[in-house]
Amino acid sequence: MLKQVGYFDPVPKEDLIGRIDRLRQLMADSGFDLALLLQNVDRFYFTGTMQKGVVAVPLDQDPLVFVEKGTDRAAMETPLNLTPVKNDREIGDILRGRRLLAGKVGLELDVLPVAVFERMKRVFDFERCGDVSEQVREVRAVKSRFELDQIVMSGRMLTSVFSLARDEVREGRTELGIEAALTAAGREMGHQGFLRMRGMNQEMMTMTVQAGFTGAIPTLLDAPITGTGVTPAVPQGSSFKKVERGVPVTIDYGGGYNGYITDETRSFVVGDLAEPFRKPYETARSIIEDVLSFAGPGTDCRDIFHRAEGMARKAGLSDLFMGHGEGKVAFIGHGLGLEINELPVLTPRHERILKEGMVFAFEPKFVLPDLGAVGMEIDLIVGSERLERVTTGPFDLVCL
Amino acid sequence: MLKQVGYFDPVPKEDLIGRIDRLRQLMADSGFDLALLLQNVDRFYFTGTMQKGVVAVPLDQDPLVFVEKGTDRAAMETPLNLTPVKNDREIGDILRGRRLLAGKVGLELDVLPVAVFERMKRVFDFERCGDVSEQVREVRAVKSRFELDQIVMSGRMLTSVFSLARDEVREGRTELGIEAALTAAGREMGHQGFLRMRGMNQEMMTMTVQAGFTGAIPTLLDAPITGTGVTPAVPQGSSFKKVERGVPVTIDYGGGYNGYITDETRSFVVGDLAEPFRKPYETARSIIEDVLSFAGPGTDCRDIFHRAEGMARKAGLSDLFMGHGEGKVAFIGHGLGLEINELPVLTPRHERILKEGMVFAFEPKFVLPDLGAVGMEIDLIVGSERLERVTTGPFDLVCL
Repeated sequence: MLKQVGYFDPVPKEDLIGRIDRLRQLMADSGFDLALLLQNVDRFYFTGTMQKGVVAVPLDQDPLVFVEKGTDRAAMETPLNLTPVKNDREIGDILRGRRLLAGKVGLELDVLPVAVFERMKRVFDFERCGDVSEQVREVRAVKSRFELDQIVMSGRMLTSVFSLARDEVREGRTELGIEAALTAAGREMGHQGFLRMRGMNQEMMTMTVQAGFTGAIPTLLDAPITGTGVTPAVPQGSSFKKVERGVPVTIDYGGGYNGYITDETRSFVVGDLAEPFRKPYETARSIIEDVLSFAGPGTDCRDIFHRAEGMARKAGLSDLFMGHGEGKVAFIGHGLGLEINELPVLTPRHERILKEGMVFAFEPKFVLPDLGAVGMEIDLIVGSERLERVTTGPFDLVCL
Repeated sequence: MLKQVGYFDPVPKEDLIGRIDRLRQLMADSGFDLALLLQNVDRFYFTGTMQKGVVAVPLDQDPLVFVEKGTDRAAMETPLNLTPVKNDREIGDILRGRRLLAGKVGLELDVLPVAVFERMKRVFDFERCGDVSEQVREVRAVKSRFELDQIVMSGRMLTSVFSLARDEVREGRTELGIEAALTAAGREMGHQGFLRMRGMNQEMMTMTVQAGFTGAIPTLLDAPITGTGVTPAVPQGSSFKKVERGVPVTIDYGGGYNGYITDETRSFVVGDLAEPFRKPYETARSIIEDVLSFAGPGTDCRDIFHRAEGMARKAGLSDLFMGHGEGKVAFIGHGLGLEINELPVLTPRHERILKEGMVFAFEPKFVLPDLGAVGMEIDLIVGSERLERVTTGPFDLVCL
């Protein structure tokens, strides 16, 4: 029935088994006996269904996929065995009956609200617990062939949408008008509708268009170019600012296909690019060419950041690199998958070695106070020898 | 500068002071000495700015609005005094210096992740703490004149979008196509871009279009009509299902103006409404007329639910009322404001008396297994004597 409405491919069983096995290895290394997963994305990742419930992954028994609501649908979505339950007390009884709560229980403490955690402690009555979110995030950081295929499909959607931008960016058009037209095109193609970002207060627009000084105003969001939005209640994203001749328009868009996010940015300009933006644009372009030339599996992400920062410094653009003033961010890229802030984070702050199968967005950007922003962002897969682009085609400034 | 881009009105200072005073009263009643607010919506509600930081509301001193990022912008957005800080340790030092951490500290434990809570305990070193989220939600449940004005503006946006639907719903058109066109129109007018729903795993689409059996498949979301979506990774919302003659198309849309959400549903049909949907539609309509005729300040929400349920029973439609099977929900309405799941909840499960200034969506809907869904949803303000509609104009089935 779901096939009739163009529902996308389910996650293959081998993938799910591989994911669960990798989680168990990391759980064993960290002394966890059971992982209890509640977050929707984590549950989907390990089971292929997001229907309401709890996923229990014991170290040495089959996982238990408890479903409280959407049971029929869960059965269509996952090849794993389901355990339908009425409520969480029933889940507790089953887990206790199998003596699964005696050891150390791993929970997603980075996203689990305190009130939910307190209820779990009461109902499940486990003895010891700890944060298993790092292990979950590590497993999720390396993508399978199936996942890479979904990411490539997501990238195709993104490319189609960007190909329409040439007709939408016009002098006098508002940021909102451009966004509305382009995201509508993506949604009609089957864009999943929104992008997920892990953690409290993390909200991510599907697209954000900046057409000048709006790209240079910092806000709470941890991104180099955030936009002003139209209200202090949603202080990010596109606004009624209009496109001006010579001032770059940055369009940051996230594809969303079967859960998988791509995230790229292009810069557009009506007429000739105004002088102050030229060197930053050329430098951003060179930084992308540079990373493609040297990075691959085994590269330390700190080196990627430092090389890019060095190129910005050599161009005399340190102050503008990855934001200005308090808007400056401490990364030049971030992992992609079911969430837009997966591992790896490309930051100088801690070690992180690229591994084959990782996927990340790489976004050298420059912010010119009061004037605007320019730069680009492309998505990269860590291949067996080098980085491979998710999308094809040019990422240069588009002159209109 | 923000005015130039059409930025909406800031929250008036009197409003903020009134909100803080009401929170203090409820804090005093529950023995809290300090509220420490971290969630973006709660911080916005009490300060008018959502920029990065922490809001501390002591029982008998002025609130402290700590800002870590977006300081200039926060200064434009809030009339309250700001305390710029580098990090949370600095916040801890200031609070300790003022001896504000000695008593009982209230935190938003319904949304605060355990890891964030543990860090706060380490950095702030408070002695006793508890959940202040119920107090915050109670204050937020009753809207001021300014808030009602924003809600009315949000409703106007919603009405404009629905007025375009007549041209978009056509036989053979996909749910996604209709949604894409209509949400684009709303966004171009200045829709804030997304809707917020409080709590873990709560994700709300701006619009969802159901054109038949897709409206009858339950999913994790706690709503009567949820849709299938296009992927198990986002198992809700519009799909590639096409509009068929005689089968109702439900469009559930959330306006979003200056943070404030409206949430209404209309049913459309190409040709004559198929027979099985007629009685459910007429009953839903009668339920709305009934609530408008009797409810007002002082009404117990349980009575509203029971009367509606009684009308469904009398029509022989109990099985289909507010969902079918495990898709049945236990409410017929929900509070609206900055989040789509505010108080009051119109459920038979617990007492809740309507008060002047509350705003809620009222949504009698019927779900016919394998066939589809029909119904409507309108937003209501609890006035001084009776309920008042947020929007104007008809909410009847639109025949095309």
